[in-house]
Amino acid sequence: MENIAYYNGVTGPIEQMMVPMNDRACFFGDGVYDAMFTWNHVPMAMDDHLARFYRSAKKVDIEVPVPVDELRALVLSLVSRVDSPTAMVYVQVTRGIGPRGHAYRFAGERASLWAFVRPDVLDPMDRDYRCITMEDTRFLHCDIKTINLLPSVIYAQRAEEHGCDETILHRGERVTECAHSNVHILKDGALRTAPCDHLILPGITRAHRIAQCRQMGIPVIEEPFTVAELMDADEVFFTSCSALCCRVREIDGRPVGGQDPELIARIQRAAWDEVLEETRQA
Amino acid sequence: MENIAYYNGVTGPIEQMMVPMNDRACFFGDGVYDAMFTWNHVPMAMDDHLARFYRSAKKVDIEVPVPVDELRALVLSLVSRVDSPTAMVYVQVTRGIGPRGHAYRFAGERASLWAFVRPDVLDPMDRDYRCITMEDTRFLHCDIKTINLLPSVIYAQRAEEHGCDETILHRGERVTECAHSNVHILKDGALRTAPCDHLILPGITRAHRIAQCRQMGIPVIEEPFTVAELMDADEVFFTSCSALCCRVREIDGRPVGGQDPELIARIQRAAWDEVLEETRQA
Repeated sequence: MENIAYYNGVTGPIEQMMVPMNDRACFFGDGVYDAMFTWNHVPMAMDDHLARFYRSAKKVDIEVPVPVDELRALVLSLVSRVDSPTAMVYVQVTRGIGPRGHAYRFAGERASLWAFVRPDVLDPMDRDYRCITMEDTRFLHCDIKTINLLPSVIYAQRAEEHGCDETILHRGERVTECAHSNVHILKDGALRTAPCDHLILPGITRAHRIAQCRQMGIPVIEEPFTVAELMDADEVFFTSCSALCCRVREIDGRPVGGQDPELIARIQRAAWDEVLEETRQA
Repeated sequence: MENIAYYNGVTGPIEQMMVPMNDRACFFGDGVYDAMFTWNHVPMAMDDHLARFYRSAKKVDIEVPVPVDELRALVLSLVSRVDSPTAMVYVQVTRGIGPRGHAYRFAGERASLWAFVRPDVLDPMDRDYRCITMEDTRFLHCDIKTINLLPSVIYAQRAEEHGCDETILHRGERVTECAHSNVHILKDGALRTAPCDHLILPGITRAHRIAQCRQMGIPVIEEPFTVAELMDADEVFFTSCSALCCRVREIDGRPVGGQDPELIARIQRAAWDEVLEETRQA
């Protein structure tokens, strides 16, 4: 199939899938999600993504209606039915179906499970990216991957309107993350990236880049950095499930980075090696 | 009918209504809403609510797909088809239908229009209400009535778990509003309520109570007040489209208010008079 979607046991092409209006996604955004990428039909870092999915759900007191083994099997089954070897895999759980009312007692007894797999491509690493900056006005639960994403929608749109790829967010002087990725800098041979608190999503790709840097002997400093440090960094890059290590060369129309091409090339090569290693089929 | 729902031209009982999974409500909460109450089959303060609905949509760059006269006619048509003379009327607009992607270019050309009318009752004014307090961790766009409501879901649930009616939110010492209503205090004969900035929803019922107080010669002070001032107030009450003036007598298990029963009774009588006046049918 070209793509496939799943909702509470029903599957079909995503464009044709219908869900109940009373699902709490529709009136409250009352749910969490996760997303991963397939390469060669293999979902990358699947266990990490699924573990985070269950953690996100737990943080908002939603019980994923199937155990992780069953969800893993469902994901693999959906992936196997889509033709494209590179695809985005999306899973979502919402609090259930019931008459609109804030408190959970309206939510029905069982959470709703959603998923889809559709063709997609990784962001290429052999080009430079351009960003804008915006004040981060999101809620204080950015560690949870919820579907309350309206601010991120606005941030992403503003980037597009400026002909840019991403929006780098900051709370005052402190850089947090991007509209839909984490942002990092290289300075004096070290990787600097914001710590995992309530202001950023603990990115899976972020964690993989950090682990690889440590393995390669590159110092990693998980501490807040400022907009001034961002603009003055040797290199700037962002990461997400579709962005393994995207090098940023322009922010708000000003040139940035470009001062440590060898180090960022090492990180990009390591990222790519990991994909090939992980998705090599037996 | 017992209830009725509407989605992009289709109507039916809300429990049976289905919407496309690709509506941007489902993955982003990418929309805004408004709600009003009918009494004697008449939606109260309808023009105020519809005006706020268009303002909310504009603030997130969504175009309501029909002009306000058409929406008003739709609301009245739906109301006329529901048996119950007292009902909740809900309207929602989402950015449209399209493949999941943060920026708007994925959103399709036309926003989705949603509505429902269902039997409901106003919160009685002849009883006392109990509240808890929680830190306000929401985003900085609380002036926009969006469907990014997951924090409010959690707040409302916590109130229920404590056997209470509402959760009063504060950012540090400053009281903002409640999970789904505005909160006000009476002190030394004056009404004190938080000013309309990005931290609270500009409540329609709030505005009506303020206007009535001014008409009755009761001073109105629209300035931030603190948790300490809340606990020390002569009276505390909250308002929403279903809560005309609900008197709070307990917060976090401690007795509050009860020091100016005559003044709050005047405000409650005025609120009730307004309902009867507005919904008297010709």
